[in-house]
Amino acid sequence: MDSRPTISVSMGEPGGIGPEVLVKALADDTLRKSARFRIHGLRSVIHRAAERAGIEPFWWRVERGSGIEPAGSEHDVLLIDTEPTLADPSVGARWAPDDSKLSGRLSFSFVDDAIAAAKLPPSHPLHAQAIVTMPISKASWNLAGHGRFPGHTELLAVRFGAKRVGMMFESPTLRVMLATAHLPLMEVRNVLTIGSVFDAIELAGEGCEQLGIVHPRIAVCGLNPHAGEGGLLGDEDERIIRPAIELAENAGHNASGPHPADTVYNAATAGKFDVVVAMYHDQGLIPVKLLHRDTAVNMTVGLGTPRTSPDHGTAYDIAGRNKADPGSATEALKLAVRLAKARGDAPRGGQL
Amino acid sequence: MDSRPTISVSMGEPGGIGPEVLVKALADDTLRKSARFRIHGLRSVIHRAAERAGIEPFWWRVERGSGIEPAGSEHDVLLIDTEPTLADPSVGARWAPDDSKLSGRLSFSFVDDAIAAAKLPPSHPLHAQAIVTMPISKASWNLAGHGRFPGHTELLAVRFGAKRVGMMFESPTLRVMLATAHLPLMEVRNVLTIGSVFDAIELAGEGCEQLGIVHPRIAVCGLNPHAGEGGLLGDEDERIIRPAIELAENAGHNASGPHPADTVYNAATAGKFDVVVAMYHDQGLIPVKLLHRDTAVNMTVGLGTPRTSPDHGTAYDIAGRNKADPGSATEALKLAVRLAKARGDAPRGGQL
Repeated sequence: MDSRPTISVSMGEPGGIGPEVLVKALADDTLRKSARFRIHGLRSVIHRAAERAGIEPFWWRVERGSGIEPAGSEHDVLLIDTEPTLADPSVGARWAPDDSKLSGRLSFSFVDDAIAAAKLPPSHPLHAQAIVTMPISKASWNLAGHGRFPGHTELLAVRFGAKRVGMMFESPTLRVMLATAHLPLMEVRNVLTIGSVFDAIELAGEGCEQLGIVHPRIAVCGLNPHAGEGGLLGDEDERIIRPAIELAENAGHNASGPHPADTVYNAATAGKFDVVVAMYHDQGLIPVKLLHRDTAVNMTVGLGTPRTSPDHGTAYDIAGRNKADPGSATEALKLAVRLAKARGDAPRGGQL
Repeated sequence: MDSRPTISVSMGEPGGIGPEVLVKALADDTLRKSARFRIHGLRSVIHRAAERAGIEPFWWRVERGSGIEPAGSEHDVLLIDTEPTLADPSVGARWAPDDSKLSGRLSFSFVDDAIAAAKLPPSHPLHAQAIVTMPISKASWNLAGHGRFPGHTELLAVRFGAKRVGMMFESPTLRVMLATAHLPLMEVRNVLTIGSVFDAIELAGEGCEQLGIVHPRIAVCGLNPHAGEGGLLGDEDERIIRPAIELAENAGHNASGPHPADTVYNAATAGKFDVVVAMYHDQGLIPVKLLHRDTAVNMTVGLGTPRTSPDHGTAYDIAGRNKADPGSATEALKLAVRLAKARGDAPRGGQL
């Protein structure tokens, strides 16, 4: 009887630090045994990263598409190896820390495979309750013809048919939901609407509830300095953000604001709020990374399936040198296990 | 022989927490004796704040414009009392924690008086080497007909005839210069030019040098997420900020960037940079207030005369209740003394 949840993990860009931090994180016996992890990736890359870190192999390898995956279900870690499907398998051992068309094609397929596992019916032995994604290179995805997806989140939203998704950051003392994310700052004006801010507030609440927080206290940032100072410093705070907060309150959410962004985080870390909704990338990420650079976890809310990822990129500058800190990857895996268990559709016993 | 510098202090909005934090800060004997402080304000308000805090009067009062100020120069703290010039002096004891035309007129004149003292020739016995301003209410200034000055900085710039001034924040682990400050976020695009970013870099260097830092290491933030990611997320980072950094390097500054704003502060607090140039208010103030809300000091660079102020507003919600923390005011006064001494034009001895 194995009541542990199943977590699908994509290995990320082969030339980045993803494989290294993943291997280092799962080398932890307690973490490894807390769930069934399925890594979608390349054997040679994972193997090399483990070797460099002096870690004994702890995974069971199966070939992608070989049809024998279910046989490995008793293992803590199963590596679904995409390597044999490469035109030239020998390339696998020599991934440069750089963007490439092949690495983009592969890292994209790892994510797609992880998504496919999550979309299997809960009764299926390979059904995954949560997804963890290691960092990819957007430039590689672009080279591989996947440029229409600026990142994981957009791909996940399309594959899961999600109407709205939110990027949330979980860290030891601060939880942040972004109302807008990867777009030029001056284009925020084009996407910030009452509806989009309302969605972000609802998603912040949903994310907190997935984490077990009942009736979360949601603080909403203003867009302008001092939250616009009553209209003296910009009108978006009163014209867009305040009405969105009122809508959210009417919908039963415990939301407040617009709060000046330069003081709301003090209140949040002091425990006055469960989550802060930031209007744009740096407004939310500056405090999260300043306080918890190595332990912050990115979770995607609104997909139906929980998805987490470490809060760093491919870090080519240190890749392949056994220098990467697995802290954030460890937290991402732990959080995925926690969220998957909370879903309640993990197998409750019986042999697969 | 009194070689201490002279510091002009404006009391700020009478109904705010300025008078209270000023009295509490100067109640510290060591701080009080480190300079000659001249408070431009109202006796009754200062007196009431001291009474509420249980502080014995430590100042020597002279009437504004009575011509007898020089006689008080041996005192640590001189209160230049504007009260007698009010039409109805009795109002002084009953300032509500709210904006008003009269409080705007008065708090404006306190700042003007402090500036006038700084503009006296160094040989004059009342010449001030630095200015400290307690918080004013922009709404009160507006009511009093001074709405063309959105805050202290703009008034100081006009009075000192400064071509360019910069708001810098000094705190125990982080120093930040703002390239733009109090304007709607979406209007940053209208004022961010190669020239304005270059000015901010130069002013950051100037501010560091005033603090005794030789050849400061200046980190410049990008405007967009991930500093624009090579143009994928906005063009300002490459089109405006990078050329400004190159100009600054050519002018002999040790400047680098554009750095992603969500990681540069980790590097700065780790000691890799002496100052960070932020492109807009919240990008600079979120980290400063998160790390050092009560001790961060605002210093204005580019006036010729150093000017500091506490990093908080009038805080009407707690005003008049002896609840305000004088931490930031104390740091502002200390920093003003340090900057005034470093100027080198303080009297070097001899009776006034």
